Amino acid sequence: VAFSTADRVAVRAMVDDLVASLRGHGASAGGGVTRLVYSQAWAAAMAEIEGWLGSAGLEVRVDAAGSRFGRLAGERPQVVMSGSHVDSVVGGGAYDGALGVAMAACAVRWLRETAGRPRLTLEVLANCEEESSRFACNFWGSRAMLGLIRPGECDLLRDADGVTIGEAMSALGLVPDRIAEARRDDVCAYVEPHIEQGPLLERLGLTIGVVDRVVGVRQLRFELRGEAGHAGTIPMAARRDALTGAAELVLAGEALARDLGQPAVATVGALRVEPGGANQVPGRVDLTVDFRHVDERVLAGMEEELRRRAAALAAARGLELSVEPRLGQRAVDLDGRLCALLEASCRRAGVRWQRMPSHAGHDAQLLATRWPSAMLFLPCAGGRSHRPDERADMDDVVRGVEVLALTLHELAYEA
Amino acid sequence: VAFSTADRVAVRAMVDDLVASLRGHGASAGGGVTRLVYSQAWAAAMAEIEGWLGSAGLEVRVDAAGSRFGRLAGERPQVVMSGSHVDSVVGGGAYDGALGVAMAACAVRWLRETAGRPRLTLEVLANCEEESSRFACNFWGSRAMLGLIRPGECDLLRDADGVTIGEAMSALGLVPDRIAEARRDDVCAYVEPHIEQGPLLERLGLTIGVVDRVVGVRQLRFELRGEAGHAGTIPMAARRDALTGAAELVLAGEALARDLGQPAVATVGALRVEPGGANQVPGRVDLTVDFRHVDERVLAGMEEELRRRAAALAAARGLELSVEPRLGQRAVDLDGRLCALLEASCRRAGVRWQRMPSHAGHDAQLLATRWPSAMLFLPCAGGRSHRPDERADMDDVVRGVEVLALTLHELAYEA
Repeated sequence: VAFSTADRVAVRAMVDDLVASLRGHGASAGGGVTRLVYSQAWAAAMAEIEGWLGSAGLEVRVDAAGSRFGRLAGERPQVVMSGSHVDSVVGGGAYDGALGVAMAACAVRWLRETAGRPRLTLEVLANCEEESSRFACNFWGSRAMLGLIRPGECDLLRDADGVTIGEAMSALGLVPDRIAEARRDDVCAYVEPHIEQGPLLERLGLTIGVVDRVVGVRQLRFELRGEAGHAGTIPMAARRDALTGAAELVLAGEALARDLGQPAVATVGALRVEPGGANQVPGRVDLTVDFRHVDERVLAGMEEELRRRAAALAAARGLELSVEPRLGQRAVDLDGRLCALLEASCRRAGVRWQRMPSHAGHDAQLLATRWPSAMLFLPCAGGRSHRPDERADMDDVVRGVEVLALTLHELAYEA
Repeated sequence: VAFSTADRVAVRAMVDDLVASLRGHGASAGGGVTRLVYSQAWAAAMAEIEGWLGSAGLEVRVDAAGSRFGRLAGERPQVVMSGSHVDSVVGGGAYDGALGVAMAACAVRWLRETAGRPRLTLEVLANCEEESSRFACNFWGSRAMLGLIRPGECDLLRDADGVTIGEAMSALGLVPDRIAEARRDDVCAYVEPHIEQGPLLERLGLTIGVVDRVVGVRQLRFELRGEAGHAGTIPMAARRDALTGAAELVLAGEALARDLGQPAVATVGALRVEPGGANQVPGRVDLTVDFRHVDERVLAGMEEELRRRAAALAAARGLELSVEPRLGQRAVDLDGRLCALLEASCRRAGVRWQRMPSHAGHDAQLLATRWPSAMLFLPCAGGRSHRPDERADMDDVVRGVEVLALTLHELAYEA
């Protein structure tokens, strides 16, 4: 099996169209996308995806978490699954997640049309949630498939407006109490295509990254409480200003990651000040530090050091401090056999590739704990992601669909 | 004229009642008050004030900006005015502004009942706006009375929701085009009672501060623009993180005020991060630095130094910087004769007092540029202000009403 020139033209048109139409659901300023899980924009995107999957001749199904599946039944029930997530960050781009869903749909459609019924069953996955940008829910769709959502969790997780994830599900007709039914025990391989979200492939002039490891990610939420007051009448020496303390913590996180050197990163992306008036000494700040490393021991050391520095600066300023983990994703090795298959497909398709770790978190890292899993990275322009001007080159995307189709062929038809 | 024991009991009950009922308009968590100009809570408070002023036998009037006046006509048209503002900061206290209105109402009521018709006219002022906490409007009510609102300004000032101040006025039946009609040329003295909002009077065990100078206040709005991106995939060395730059600026402002020593203060009270997700490198931050000093030359030096440090850190981090003035209130001397009259009244009433500067901005500092003006400070518990637990002691308040009444008597009846 191989792509013809006509296949490439057809795939290019289809992927381009799918990405463009998904971009319309949750469109925000400057071409950006805000498509939070279980929002109206998300529901509209999922409805559109159901339409494509059906028109590609696949059997469409929704699981109890709201993820969508397009199934091409094979001779055997074991499932080779490929796809990615549909939700986005606030003000994110049109490619993160959505491109992987579109690529998997194109690859499976091409296989059905070219190679017919497979021996193993193929499924396209449109995963409901990956970004944790509405709820701190940590791979909600993948956890549902692995049966890892804890009893009562639907009532505990709340968004910024106080809505529980269970309420958000119910509003779309899903039944939170049935989430355990989303569990899958029939998957034998998972391959996730995704943009790199970093600058490496583009800089090296490569078309494909075969991801063999995903960095560990932790997020700690820090709350600093001092004393609010009037910005004029409280002498500097009498202040317990929560924001000056928070500023020290922001810089401590940056210094820690810089001192460790690559691949350590640390980011304060969310920070909120109360009461927030220009003429009020801040009495309370909460902020989240996101930090990442390929080595779990280094990650644990970073957490310890962040907690130590925060405690020291809070004590020095007379601030009260609370710290709570918001997210924890362990660094994980992906499946060696699948990585080797992806490399073989790159060779057969004649594309330039390399093995690399992922510095972003992905569903594959959680699914890899139960199912053989791997990822296929595509370059993204300037390494820009989680922003409105996120972009992938369509030549690369078509080559990526080809590599993915060859790999799925090997897995599902040559088994 | 002097207060009898019965007068003190009556005044205490009346002030207590007025403050408590005003607290109900815009009540927020923990006993706090959020009463932004031209909001529904503000309108309800003004309606209540009109009721009191009328029941105190005063002639009630609304000016084109929405400020309320309770008039006790004298033999001559020249006006001796006393009062304060009705708006509050977000999550502020029940005494800032409102107490001054209540005290002036009690003092003028007592004068009408005790001394009858004055030679000069007395007016109680319930000023519409002082805090600039909804619009950056810089003493809106006082500027209206001085004819200092610029043509078109009603269409330019917008709140955080994009509503113009003119639209907010129109929604309450006020006519923005007629704001020039609020100008007053008949005022010969202004005396503003207010809580100190700082810890000094309480620490010294004094009942009254006679304010002879108001510190200068400036606010600069800084915008830092870097590049948003994914918190995992952008190496530390490749980042242009707007928040780490902003953190340096927060600390630079604090260090500047600390190094200058008392009475210099500098505060970042408002800071907003975009895009704001925990897994996004911040691309944009805007923040406001509020800084104050009694000496205009020092204040100018602080502004220059803040701008210099911001430019240096932005350059070092590859960030774009914009700076714009948000507020500028010059340090000002209050009227010497009025201060001497207030001191004489303190002596006659037998209260402990001292002269002092105000470290907060007040309407009196702007009105003093046109009318002889002075202020009377009362202690506030723990120096706490602009917070829900702001509080003044009712014994002090009753003594303050007496000092104010004696002073207004001297100005309006002995003229």
